[in-house]
Amino acid sequence: MKLETQWIVGFVEGTGCFHVSINPNLEARQSLLPEFSVVQHKKNVQILYALKTYFCCGVVQGDGNVMIYRVRNLNHLTKIIIPFFEKHLLKTKQRIAFQKFRTILLKMERKEYLTVEGFEKIKTLSKDLDANV
Amino acid sequence: MKLETQWIVGFVEGTGCFHVSINPNLEARQSLLPEFSVVQHKKNVQILYALKTYFCCGVVQGDGNVMIYRVRNLNHLTKIIIPFFEKHLLKTKQRIAFQKFRTILLKMERKEYLTVEGFEKIKTLSKDLDANV
Repeated sequence: MKLETQWIVGFVEGTGCFHVSINPNLEARQSLLPEFSVVQHKKNVQILYALKTYFCCGVVQGDGNVMIYRVRNLNHLTKIIIPFFEKHLLKTKQRIAFQKFRTILLKMERKEYLTVEGFEKIKTLSKDLDANV
Repeated sequence: MKLETQWIVGFVEGTGCFHVSINPNLEARQSLLPEFSVVQHKKNVQILYALKTYFCCGVVQGDGNVMIYRVRNLNHLTKIIIPFFEKHLLKTKQRIAFQKFRTILLKMERKEYLTVEGFEKIKTLSKDLDANV
């Protein structure tokens, strides 16, 4: 199944999620879990595999009727997912979520979590991202 | 805001609905209420107006946080909405819902609801459409 870029953008507006989890039991980099995901009913799982093929990264996982395409690898997020949505702009408020996600990931790429101040800033931004999704 | 056809298709996969309501208190044609709709949080209402502008039909309505772009006019559905999704194919199981919706509307356009048998067939198809959405 061939996916077109604008179809992917439209699909992600409604079904995608940009999220950064924080594990309070871990420290610094290990506690930060950024993720781009798309959720679908299992009847549409072939679409999730088509996304995986398109982006050449991520995994398709699921349980019961809910299936998820997720990309968690920082390198894949910063080198593949972020450049895609920088080039092909989201049109809904999802774009604001993406921009916040991008800001967090660029800070992670620059290892800003290594300072207490930088780490706190990333945590604050991650919570702000959740509040606006 | 300019919408591209493939963006609309991708967006409708996740947020659109093809539906035919049946009002048991009315008879024949009056009891059948076909509808194409797209639901969004009010923060994305500008997208619904962009869809209305793109298709040159339908209305944007809502209450509270939920806004809906809906097309109910049979002529607009058969002359604008159905040809769009015939030309630009949906990729998820939403395509099956669209095909059933299209079958019902073509029967309505041919006034097949005027016979008891035709009307019962349309009602059965409408319930089947709901079961598969």
